[in-house]
Amino acid sequence: MASTDEQTKTAPESGYPPRRSPPNLFGIDFGLRLLVFASAVTALVVLVTSKQTKTIPISRDAKFQHSPAFIYLLVALAVTCLYSIVTMFASFFAISSPSPSPKLLFHLILFDAVMAGVMASATGTAGSVAYVGLKGNSHVNWNKICNLYDKFCWHIGSSTAVSLVASITLVLLVVISAYSLYRRTNC
Amino acid sequence: MASTDEQTKTAPESGYPPRRSPPNLFGIDFGLRLLVFASAVTALVVLVTSKQTKTIPISRDAKFQHSPAFIYLLVALAVTCLYSIVTMFASFFAISSPSPSPKLLFHLILFDAVMAGVMASATGTAGSVAYVGLKGNSHVNWNKICNLYDKFCWHIGSSTAVSLVASITLVLLVVISAYSLYRRTNC
Repeated sequence: MASTDEQTKTAPESGYPPRRSPPNLFGIDFGLRLLVFASAVTALVVLVTSKQTKTIPISRDAKFQHSPAFIYLLVALAVTCLYSIVTMFASFFAISSPSPSPKLLFHLILFDAVMAGVMASATGTAGSVAYVGLKGNSHVNWNKICNLYDKFCWHIGSSTAVSLVASITLVLLVVISAYSLYRRTNC
Repeated sequence: MASTDEQTKTAPESGYPPRRSPPNLFGIDFGLRLLVFASAVTALVVLVTSKQTKTIPISRDAKFQHSPAFIYLLVALAVTCLYSIVTMFASFFAISSPSPSPKLLFHLILFDAVMAGVMASATGTAGSVAYVGLKGNSHVNWNKICNLYDKFCWHIGSSTAVSLVASITLVLLVVISAYSLYRRTNC
């Protein structure tokens, strides 16, 4: 309570009319970045451990390296992991700051939007190949493979689902930073 | 020149120190929205007209309805078309306004970010199925179909490429709105 009183007292002294200080949403921001990191790491581990060997008549592997879609997802997840670590630092230091810089917010929106696009496209890419594996496509004689490689498909499916969480969280981060920036224009 | 002189003269009268008015980027914004609309319509038309009938021993169709991935792209493109028309109106009226409302900018960021995510995932989804059609996947015996259905594949490929343009433009729109909002915090 004392600190908010101080804020409203000091504001008029600077010659400007009193104004509500914009909210610092970096607590939520940091939490969401932690979620992006956690989901990207989970998806990455589940994807990388998806190898399954099946002895049908002869032993055959199902590996995520067999499809470029899963390699793209792997790269996107690795980049997202690194990115979320870097921005978590920025977010963590901004929590303690009373008014985070608009420049930081703008840059977070910029990179979060790009990363959200990359993650969303990677999720779609891997998801659709996983769907063909699950259902097959009788029109072009693509057989389903998930009845054989059940563990492999479970890994790929889970990885895609967790990647979807990361993508949606990145879009949420864009919206939160935009809201912080919007609240700072009320002056 | 006369109008900028007027601006710098009138600013101190209001009691605030003189400040540069934030730039109105809605000209670019409108242009980019037009690009989103044009690319979404192009991709939509190319996707919908992608049917190809091939008489191999028997006549067989390749239709985009045969794959849920292309139906998802179709829905995403249709939604993006509608969305770009609606926001083009908002953008058009904001061009003439000397200082567009921060609330409008925030809402544009919010919806542009969501639409960018949807379009990026739809592009990835359709692109990966098109890639399997082009290259096949020998590990799971998915045969390539683009050597048979060349015209169909050309349509799907072009539609995906133009959808990628729409996705990237939507991310650019997020960045431009964020920049406008950021420039409005310098007061």
